[in-house]
Amino acid sequence: MTAKKKFAVLLSGCGVFDGAEIHEATLTMYAIMKNGCEYEIFAPDVNQYHVVNHISGEEMNETRNVLVESARIARGNIKDLKDFNAELFDVLIFPGGFGAAKNLSSFAFDGEKMSVNEDVEKAILDMIKLKKPIGALCIAPVILAKVLSKVDLTIGQDKGTAEAIEKLGSNHIQTSHGDVVIDKKYKIATTPCYMLDATILDIAEGADNVVKALVEIS
Amino acid sequence: MTAKKKFAVLLSGCGVFDGAEIHEATLTMYAIMKNGCEYEIFAPDVNQYHVVNHISGEEMNETRNVLVESARIARGNIKDLKDFNAELFDVLIFPGGFGAAKNLSSFAFDGEKMSVNEDVEKAILDMIKLKKPIGALCIAPVILAKVLSKVDLTIGQDKGTAEAIEKLGSNHIQTSHGDVVIDKKYKIATTPCYMLDATILDIAEGADNVVKALVEIS
Repeated sequence: MTAKKKFAVLLSGCGVFDGAEIHEATLTMYAIMKNGCEYEIFAPDVNQYHVVNHISGEEMNETRNVLVESARIARGNIKDLKDFNAELFDVLIFPGGFGAAKNLSSFAFDGEKMSVNEDVEKAILDMIKLKKPIGALCIAPVILAKVLSKVDLTIGQDKGTAEAIEKLGSNHIQTSHGDVVIDKKYKIATTPCYMLDATILDIAEGADNVVKALVEIS
Repeated sequence: MTAKKKFAVLLSGCGVFDGAEIHEATLTMYAIMKNGCEYEIFAPDVNQYHVVNHISGEEMNETRNVLVESARIARGNIKDLKDFNAELFDVLIFPGGFGAAKNLSSFAFDGEKMSVNEDVEKAILDMIKLKKPIGALCIAPVILAKVLSKVDLTIGQDKGTAEAIEKLGSNHIQTSHGDVVIDKKYKIATTPCYMLDATILDIAEGADNVVKALVEIS
């Protein structure tokens, strides 16, 4: 019996508008186990860019921590991203949500002039150095476009985001529900999820497909 | 073609220790759609009993609103429980999490001397009056034990909770992962989920089984 492949799931808070998208995160964890693998969850110990009321869309006068809020999705079983060791994992995966573009990077505010959290960048580069695969859902692929170069990837069909990815020097491929783009050079698999007008069924399918692709190339 | 059956999903916040259990909520929504039905999401517009740091388990000096935090799981698409109309739904379902025992009721603090939020109680009684089914996961069945009487239900195997249910005048049936207890008299279906030491695969199975049972009896 071969050992179960181990995923590191990198979260960015808890809630689509200021953190990790909850359905994408949950259904990624589900897909990992359904495909016979296991996971540990990580998030950076930094404050969220801001806190958004998910009904009104307005900013709330509060401060929340990305690691502490991500722990809600992880049921407390989470580690500081500073303690991530690429040697111990087979795959690194990023669910989406605005947290990827607000907390893990500044893409939501700076477009292609974005910066990336240094521990997030290190985790990506460490995996690449070890030739281990990385997956990204929804908006999270923009982080890979910033840290690496000439990656084939997808965020679905959003024109502005696709253009920013091209300006960052990567190659955007238009996709629909459940589609996965694989970059064989880097071993990167991406899928659009809620970057399209999707239902929770589409998210489950996208997460399952991207996890299957990552298991295949790992 | 018959119309899709419509579920009302009642949330209690966002995070297992002070709100709705995120995996149970997400996988219930997924199970509803996977079984050819649709859903709307509701939560009461009240403050959470408290806010818990999901890493340390300690109380945080903050105030959060159950409806606003539940909107994170609902991606903003949520309604105030005061606007729930049982006429418009085929099934009412409660995912678990401590929110069911802290925000929707006071079971976590008062045991069988618990009280239940009045809009939650009304939603349950309105469904029962119309002979429409109700589902509950994890700890949420205690709310049904309080509002109704002589219900056959399960919260898994936890002795203290099972005893409280018996003291409330209902009949607790011991179950394991994925099992569903059906009370035909009331059309109530319950399943233990994270009241057992479960994985996310068990939660998906429990949610799917309870949704299937509810569709069957609705």
